[in-house]
Amino acid sequence: MVAIEPRTLKGFRDFPPALAMAREHLVDTARAVYRSYGFAPIDTPALEYADVLLGKLDADAEIQRQIYRFTDHGGRDVALRFDLTVPFARFAAQHVAQLGTPFKRYHVGSVWRGENTQAGRYREFLQCDFDTIGTTSNLADIEVVLVVHDLFVALGFDRFCVRVSSRLVLAGVLDALGIAERAPGILRSVDKLAKQGPDAVHAELVDKVGLEAKAAAAVLDLVGSDLDAVAVDFGGHPMVGDGVARLRELLAVAAAAGVPAHRLRIDLSISRGLDYYTGTVLETFLDDLPTIGSVCSGGRYDDLAGLYTKQSLPGVGASLGLDRLLAAMEELGLVPTAATPAPVFVARFPGTDVAELVRLGAEVRASGAGVELFPDERKLGVQLAYAEKRGFKVAVLVGPAEVIAGTVKVKDLGARTEAVVARAQVADEVRRICDG
Amino acid sequence: MVAIEPRTLKGFRDFPPALAMAREHLVDTARAVYRSYGFAPIDTPALEYADVLLGKLDADAEIQRQIYRFTDHGGRDVALRFDLTVPFARFAAQHVAQLGTPFKRYHVGSVWRGENTQAGRYREFLQCDFDTIGTTSNLADIEVVLVVHDLFVALGFDRFCVRVSSRLVLAGVLDALGIAERAPGILRSVDKLAKQGPDAVHAELVDKVGLEAKAAAAVLDLVGSDLDAVAVDFGGHPMVGDGVARLRELLAVAAAAGVPAHRLRIDLSISRGLDYYTGTVLETFLDDLPTIGSVCSGGRYDDLAGLYTKQSLPGVGASLGLDRLLAAMEELGLVPTAATPAPVFVARFPGTDVAELVRLGAEVRASGAGVELFPDERKLGVQLAYAEKRGFKVAVLVGPAEVIAGTVKVKDLGARTEAVVARAQVADEVRRICDG
Repeated sequence: MVAIEPRTLKGFRDFPPALAMAREHLVDTARAVYRSYGFAPIDTPALEYADVLLGKLDADAEIQRQIYRFTDHGGRDVALRFDLTVPFARFAAQHVAQLGTPFKRYHVGSVWRGENTQAGRYREFLQCDFDTIGTTSNLADIEVVLVVHDLFVALGFDRFCVRVSSRLVLAGVLDALGIAERAPGILRSVDKLAKQGPDAVHAELVDKVGLEAKAAAAVLDLVGSDLDAVAVDFGGHPMVGDGVARLRELLAVAAAAGVPAHRLRIDLSISRGLDYYTGTVLETFLDDLPTIGSVCSGGRYDDLAGLYTKQSLPGVGASLGLDRLLAAMEELGLVPTAATPAPVFVARFPGTDVAELVRLGAEVRASGAGVELFPDERKLGVQLAYAEKRGFKVAVLVGPAEVIAGTVKVKDLGARTEAVVARAQVADEVRRICDG
Repeated sequence: MVAIEPRTLKGFRDFPPALAMAREHLVDTARAVYRSYGFAPIDTPALEYADVLLGKLDADAEIQRQIYRFTDHGGRDVALRFDLTVPFARFAAQHVAQLGTPFKRYHVGSVWRGENTQAGRYREFLQCDFDTIGTTSNLADIEVVLVVHDLFVALGFDRFCVRVSSRLVLAGVLDALGIAERAPGILRSVDKLAKQGPDAVHAELVDKVGLEAKAAAAVLDLVGSDLDAVAVDFGGHPMVGDGVARLRELLAVAAAAGVPAHRLRIDLSISRGLDYYTGTVLETFLDDLPTIGSVCSGGRYDDLAGLYTKQSLPGVGASLGLDRLLAAMEELGLVPTAATPAPVFVARFPGTDVAELVRLGAEVRASGAGVELFPDERKLGVQLAYAEKRGFKVAVLVGPAEVIAGTVKVKDLGARTEAVVARAQVADEVRRICDG
């Protein structure tokens, strides 16, 4: 009997090495792409005043039931952040005067939601958001699409598609149809189109939103249209005209920047349920993982931080649901199994001169390859089995025979070959295998 | 009047770009060094069952008052982790059978303590721990010292010192002096030596710990001794003999690996207050920041996870107090002020062809330098002032004259020089400045 059963909370998970390395790789890749476009990192506290985090939400909103909220030692009503958007709005209100605009930031951080768990969904998950605020320029919208594109290419995906729409177009057409005042309900219904199909959405538009059947059909017609058809039918409406022009510029510039046509589509059924968005909206789907839905979503908004500041802060950005992507990749066997970040394993023989072993390790490490020294004088078979299990690429052996000969045995654990090289050549030989 | 005052909780802080970039650099550097020795990342939840996190601690321990603890929606007694050691013990108990030993892990993660705030101390802070478990080999202890050394060199520090002692030596001498049963109290008192001085510690050893004045003097004598003196006086005691031999091997191997003598000292006054440690103990001091105390501390323990498993898990490791180090560097003006991760700024002129601007940016980016495009057609002076403030190295200008001539103006913002180059040469020119 142990004193305490080791266990994690429901909906929470540990990340053992192979999974943690895959996750670090995703984060590093996202950061590198964000940085290459001039987005700078920020961070904010995990814990905030509950009124700061929740102020914008209805008292009965679902998030109220999901949020981790409690009273701290100082009697403060506090909560764990449930997204990175609200903390960014609060941050921007406090710091934007000093930082100046345009302000481009990314933020990688955990968020917490006590929602009912399902496959691939956890109560703690890592988000990777990026936004440009303080500009209404379409160049910022275009750049968001380019960043998302470069991100998934950098992550190793080939078959994916960024689907883009515009709230300007959607809202303009609803206005032209005379049903603008029902826009929020309509957009929330349309957002369910991919999951529930046109019949269910039509029924909801009529029964819940209160549209006439004809108007509901017109809405479904709209979201199935292409840009040219909408331009012909509704282009005279100023919002529609503006929205179509921005989307067309986005397509043209993305093509000029080398984004292949199959990775970027106008899809007017992309509406994003949130009231928040006012212009470009986008979602990203992986062709090989259609069931997980959008893995990177975002859009343009007029007013990021109206709750905290009188300064108008328009902006555009997107959010990568990193842990959700990781869980899907894990399920599909796309996460590498190697559990060591160092490619080189050095065995320890009985009576080995530890100083010489450490010098050998330092030499290979200085050449750029990580090295693990086995700490104990165990049987060579045990040590090599350990090296295989961990996923090392190279094993370096300096047994008694090699010590006498001044040589080193270098095993390529992938190719299952080995070579005996002079002590002075070991770093080169190891690098040859690691780079090959 | 805004609806909600934007503010952070007392003891919590935002990280604007310059600070967040400095922090990311510290984390990246620590990770690279840990990885180069074969330590693999893990992660564990921020939130755990309170009994899992607190089981080891007395009901009246200070940590009980500092911990963020509450009841979740499911009625569970939960808490935010207050260090990375307890979660690692729980993790190891659950997963070590599958992962196998030796197991080398690092863990970078935030921890939360509601302690009274003081300069450089926050209620949320980032720890970077690394440990090797499942071995008692002195090679693992030696490697911890080498990792700490390489880490501070990689962080750009020249003048620092890893001070090493051994609980085996301390406990063995106390045993030889016949005061072994008072060891915990003695070690806690000795741990205050650097802060309170020998007189205060002597008084505490007599008044609180209950030693005779002579024994208290012997303890202070011990912790001021060098290894040779201790070996002469107490080397016959098996624990002292073993401890001295391990420390001597550590010194010899570290020297062979190239650690300069001034960066590694035996200091028997390093005792670490925690009961937990049983062998090597170490602290790291920056010569230029003596007031902040140890920035990286650790040691060897016999039993990591006895509370959660019957399996004995000896190990050795250390913890980098990253946010504390960052706060100290900030205070001393050691944090760079540049607030952009991209070195290259591209201005936008009225009427610029956006597709061409985006192509130019993509080209420079493909050559390896991050690029930010200014999104709005504002006055050039405003754009260049923005670029200066953010800390870009290079500004690229393609005005009407350059468009006609097929050239690009490249400004070195550091050297305050500029050159006009052919459009095809822009990436090379930019790289020349960035690399120079």
